[in-house]
Amino acid sequence: MAAVKRSPLAPRRFPRVPDVAGVALAGAATGLKKGKTPDLMLVRLAPGTTVAGMLTRSRCPSAPVDWCRAALPGGKAQALVVNSGNANAFTGQSGAEVVDATVRAAADLVGCPRRQVFVASTGVIGQPVARNHIPKSLKRLAKGLTPDAWRPAAEAIMTTDTFPKAASRTVTLGDATITVAGIAKGSGMIAPDMATMLAFLFTDARVPAPVLRTLLKRAVDRSFNCVTVDGDTSTSDTVLAFATGQGPRHPTLDRATGPHARAFAAALEDVAADLSQQIARDGEGARKFVTIRVDGATSARAARKIGLAIANSPLVKTAIAGEDANWGRIVMAVGKAGERADRDRLRIAIGGTAIAEDGRAVNGYDEAPVAAHMRGSEIDIAVDLGLGRGRATVWTCDLTHGYIDINADYRT
Amino acid sequence: MAAVKRSPLAPRRFPRVPDVAGVALAGAATGLKKGKTPDLMLVRLAPGTTVAGMLTRSRCPSAPVDWCRAALPGGKAQALVVNSGNANAFTGQSGAEVVDATVRAAADLVGCPRRQVFVASTGVIGQPVARNHIPKSLKRLAKGLTPDAWRPAAEAIMTTDTFPKAASRTVTLGDATITVAGIAKGSGMIAPDMATMLAFLFTDARVPAPVLRTLLKRAVDRSFNCVTVDGDTSTSDTVLAFATGQGPRHPTLDRATGPHARAFAAALEDVAADLSQQIARDGEGARKFVTIRVDGATSARAARKIGLAIANSPLVKTAIAGEDANWGRIVMAVGKAGERADRDRLRIAIGGTAIAEDGRAVNGYDEAPVAAHMRGSEIDIAVDLGLGRGRATVWTCDLTHGYIDINADYRT
Repeated sequence: MAAVKRSPLAPRRFPRVPDVAGVALAGAATGLKKGKTPDLMLVRLAPGTTVAGMLTRSRCPSAPVDWCRAALPGGKAQALVVNSGNANAFTGQSGAEVVDATVRAAADLVGCPRRQVFVASTGVIGQPVARNHIPKSLKRLAKGLTPDAWRPAAEAIMTTDTFPKAASRTVTLGDATITVAGIAKGSGMIAPDMATMLAFLFTDARVPAPVLRTLLKRAVDRSFNCVTVDGDTSTSDTVLAFATGQGPRHPTLDRATGPHARAFAAALEDVAADLSQQIARDGEGARKFVTIRVDGATSARAARKIGLAIANSPLVKTAIAGEDANWGRIVMAVGKAGERADRDRLRIAIGGTAIAEDGRAVNGYDEAPVAAHMRGSEIDIAVDLGLGRGRATVWTCDLTHGYIDINADYRT
Repeated sequence: MAAVKRSPLAPRRFPRVPDVAGVALAGAATGLKKGKTPDLMLVRLAPGTTVAGMLTRSRCPSAPVDWCRAALPGGKAQALVVNSGNANAFTGQSGAEVVDATVRAAADLVGCPRRQVFVASTGVIGQPVARNHIPKSLKRLAKGLTPDAWRPAAEAIMTTDTFPKAASRTVTLGDATITVAGIAKGSGMIAPDMATMLAFLFTDARVPAPVLRTLLKRAVDRSFNCVTVDGDTSTSDTVLAFATGQGPRHPTLDRATGPHARAFAAALEDVAADLSQQIARDGEGARKFVTIRVDGATSARAARKIGLAIANSPLVKTAIAGEDANWGRIVMAVGKAGERADRDRLRIAIGGTAIAEDGRAVNGYDEAPVAAHMRGSEIDIAVDLGLGRGRATVWTCDLTHGYIDINADYRT
């Protein structure tokens, strides 16, 4: 694969992520990827940690996704093992055996039931993983577990990512300050139908698994499910949220409603949205970060679908790459989304400048401010359907020669 | 827009298209496009000609699409006016007035009711057309109408197309030889939800409009609705079929069943499929023509949806551009299609070489013959879901730097 430089849209530096009580991490290079590139992450979670997850809806899920789907109803977690360099997807029985061996090794190391071990893999599809590679490597990682290894952990789960992705927020519950932190990876094959490629959220709040499930679903619907790079949904999409309950004395979040749950949910959604935006900023070949706000749709679902139709349109994305305010292509994308739309009520603005309304360009439309906005690296598109109260915000990036360079020879 | 050379996948020459009794055509440059590029086509059809059509399902249709939708139930046609260089889409009331003036002028020239005039436009979206430009230009075209102007007509409807597209078949009905001929345009914004960008089919058979509608729908579902370049559905997609009834003495096709209808339907579908494949061969930036056969799906509809998911996947398309037999991405695309699929029953072959089955790569898979096939310009992908009897064939092209070059600065 062609060497790819850090995305021009990357944050200036890796963020400071506070420790999350009950969480210890490690990341290392074990040879699944070429050279000394980190490719394996281990996370140990305090006994009693609850877990919720959302997994790809792909009909061809990876072996680790199969495992997580089976283990999630248990609601408890003490270990998380994630490798990059190989997706362990479409690897048949041998893939399931690799997961089995990995889970067994992690359970032994951490001292927990196997069902409390979660796994995820990302990389090439269809190539078998050597059965004992990961189990053997885990021993070394277990010795290096520390609460502050966010960066090595985030680096170990990257594939075509050009920067490691992390985010955190704190929230006050009662008298205590609780932390929500997360890491994610993703750059191509990003059109989560359920969750993005891989994202892991950690909190020291005390949240029973059923409540965590409810809050996670809500956060994911407004974050990872609103980001797209290329419209391609991965076989491995996985979002897992872990709550250790080890934070300073604070009220248990025993329901998904009320002020405490709202404050926590806002932090969870913020972290998820931050990571989602970082994924779009690291979209393969991306040179522009695009935010698409859709208002006035018949429902939030319809708004998201219309936003994604715009965000996934190669004609919209190449126009943005070419700094061309070709808003006719936005009209096209709204028209094809399959949701209710009325050509003559549709309003479109780019960079805050109204462009289209009443089924035509606005009177005296001046393209100059829009053209100036298109030359920037942060593009804002606003679409109002004028039909209802459904709204959504979707994030994506432009489609450039870089995307083709990266993907035309990914395996070589 | 960057100058684009003729597609390397183009047919060697424009095909010989026989006259269709009752059809006279003209094409000319009138200044809607820059330079002396042809941009307006007029077709005169013998009185009594029947018409059937399929139009874009876009919620933001062009003014000409609105007109055709209103006129089609009449079932009769005597004129067809098509311009390129401007789609007359999202042009509000002024767009409808342009259509009105065009229809009025054509009806006067040909001497027919306005409802027997059909119109289509293709080009930039959202820019008003000067109201009298087309009506004035039609007079000149009317003087040049001839039965053999297939090539000037096909050239006049091109936008980013690099070659004019036509196809024809003959069919024996009773003792008579009947002709079906067609022209089409399309290169980008190709993912017909109903019909492709623009295609016009002509026959001298005697086919009542309701029968023509039934046969056209069937043909379109297996041709124009099975081709995609970029997954973007146009505001202007239009397929119209005209039957003049002026062929040598032959039985009227007064129902959609029986041997005569079957023979005619086969010719109609052949012409439509030929034009569809030409569109994929002229896909913006295309260097490889891709045929995707899907078998064993739960229905033909499901098979087509899975085929289109593969054909629209930017990761599959860039892998093909890179001559990389990255079949894991085909697995990914099947998984995301939203139709029933079973990872462990899925079989994939490329260029006739079996690659994947039983949820993994086939035993002893040798990539060499597949790699050789990928270096060619005609790529065959076969997917068997192993679930039912639904099948479909879908055509597309690869995604190359050329697509981005063409679309990043289309309007400049």
